[in-house]
Amino acid sequence: MTAVQAPPSAPEVLGRCRGLVQPALREAVGRLHPWVAEMAGYSFGWCEVGGAPAAAPGGKGVRQALSVLGAEAAGADGAAGVPAAVAVELVHTFSLLHDDIMDGDATRRRRPAVWKAYGTGPAVLAGDALFALAVETLATAPQGAGTVRLLSAALADLVRGQADDLLFATRPWTGPERVTADEYRSMAEGKTGALLGCAAALGAVLGGAGEGTADALDRAGRHLGIAFQLVDDVLGIWGDPAVTGKPVGGDLRQRKKTYPVLAALDSPAARGLPELLDAPGREAEAAALIDAAGGRTAALTQARAHTATARALLSAAPLATEAAGQLVQLLDHLAGRQL
Amino acid sequence: MTAVQAPPSAPEVLGRCRGLVQPALREAVGRLHPWVAEMAGYSFGWCEVGGAPAAAPGGKGVRQALSVLGAEAAGADGAAGVPAAVAVELVHTFSLLHDDIMDGDATRRRRPAVWKAYGTGPAVLAGDALFALAVETLATAPQGAGTVRLLSAALADLVRGQADDLLFATRPWTGPERVTADEYRSMAEGKTGALLGCAAALGAVLGGAGEGTADALDRAGRHLGIAFQLVDDVLGIWGDPAVTGKPVGGDLRQRKKTYPVLAALDSPAARGLPELLDAPGREAEAAALIDAAGGRTAALTQARAHTATARALLSAAPLATEAAGQLVQLLDHLAGRQL
Repeated sequence: MTAVQAPPSAPEVLGRCRGLVQPALREAVGRLHPWVAEMAGYSFGWCEVGGAPAAAPGGKGVRQALSVLGAEAAGADGAAGVPAAVAVELVHTFSLLHDDIMDGDATRRRRPAVWKAYGTGPAVLAGDALFALAVETLATAPQGAGTVRLLSAALADLVRGQADDLLFATRPWTGPERVTADEYRSMAEGKTGALLGCAAALGAVLGGAGEGTADALDRAGRHLGIAFQLVDDVLGIWGDPAVTGKPVGGDLRQRKKTYPVLAALDSPAARGLPELLDAPGREAEAAALIDAAGGRTAALTQARAHTATARALLSAAPLATEAAGQLVQLLDHLAGRQL
Repeated sequence: MTAVQAPPSAPEVLGRCRGLVQPALREAVGRLHPWVAEMAGYSFGWCEVGGAPAAAPGGKGVRQALSVLGAEAAGADGAAGVPAAVAVELVHTFSLLHDDIMDGDATRRRRPAVWKAYGTGPAVLAGDALFALAVETLATAPQGAGTVRLLSAALADLVRGQADDLLFATRPWTGPERVTADEYRSMAEGKTGALLGCAAALGAVLGGAGEGTADALDRAGRHLGIAFQLVDDVLGIWGDPAVTGKPVGGDLRQRKKTYPVLAALDSPAARGLPELLDAPGREAEAAALIDAAGGRTAALTQARAHTATARALLSAAPLATEAAGQLVQLLDHLAGRQL
């Protein structure tokens, strides 16, 4: 008699997928120039500067899990999604390396960012190498042309989202030149959603899914990305630094055009907020006023709406039941982090 | 009666190929985020900072010409090679943008480098966007998987060559840790040869060539790249700054491990050269000693040998006569620049 098993939790799903993908990811990184491989290994948390082995926290591994689950949702073995998983983790790491340079972020996962640890030039190079390796990984896997097309479209969106995000910094808080909620959504979809959607869609394609199914997974991933970014924005203002690993008020100090701020600015209760946002050292007051003006609630409402859309897309698509259940579990876990 | 026409000169070949490729290149760049497209246009010499049209010198367009001639050498119309030409020009420009950051080169083609004109972060982003666009261009063209595989292999070599070049700077002039001629060749093949070889091979594949022909063109391009780099090294020490656009003694001031220096250091006539190379302001003396120790002659001899190998590879391959003749013409032109 088999005992009835509880469905796996999101951390269990992430752990299982990581176990499936890690050997291939390490093998791919091992083919890089040794110096570049060390920088990549440092980013993944596998080693320290100089190459000594480490077990530093890497990322959550969301993207690789989406690829594995995408393949399983298409009815294939999770192993079919591994080339997609490797490619999207490489692209994600490439984008973190380069984004940290662009944003001047000196810390990543509680360690010096690669550009701080190795220098800006080497960090640019390591990112380029990971990018090239991701493309090579897909191009040499089955259905190369189709999967590379999906990846390059996501890359174009990712760059476009990052460009918008950088340009948002030059825009005013109010007036006709202000950043609108629509522009925010488009930026978040590009910067965060495109690769999440691509991860799931690529896995599905490698698992033999038709275009409709891959497209539904892509769109679900994009909505998940927007929800993820919205939650990130909330955590960036009100999150516990001990949990988020980010400094208190960092996003406010950097005058980022995050959604809670944009939503609050639209409210009559936010009188005086633009001045507060521009005043150094008054981040705590600004955070309180954003909250009072409804910025936090608006962001969380939006996040829930995008999560619901993603969930609806998943239930409407013809997916294998077990994998679909794990995708939803992952979705709820990510959209509900520490709130 | 048709007058007998002289075969076109290398500049005529370059001009004809440029005319064929430019509309597609401009169309591709036009699909980028407007800000990124401006940085790309600035790099290509099409506009000034701010977007005002310009006709600044772009590159020579060697890579796009190799793709067009590769397609013609395979018996196809040159237009068949255009997607390859667009992709390799985008990759070349991406690598210039990022290399200028890594090498700290503030000037490119007599104008401020993109990172100087727009900032380091934006230049990183623009490079990434061009890279992604190159991959997309090939993935959506015929034979996507095969051509993307060729491109990603060249990209891996390019990054490996750039990594070696950066690490050469940390090595001593003499002793067991010195940079050997073999290591130099491998670096130059990766950094300069891989993309030239790939350009011709991609064009040939799109023109319908078999694997053997594409491979011969790839190898010829790699030898051309090594020759090109050797000539660049000579010009970097003894070239006329008014012609090269590079400052006198720049390579020596940056203590680059160029071939003339490495070759001279192997000669007993180079006594005292390491000390001279490390002494600021003594570049003219160093250049004279490198010359006296045979460094310039050795580099030019090597360049001629690699050009001859490239020419031999081209004559042994089953190429369309007219295109093959133009490839050789281009080869001789590039390897014989201003010497």
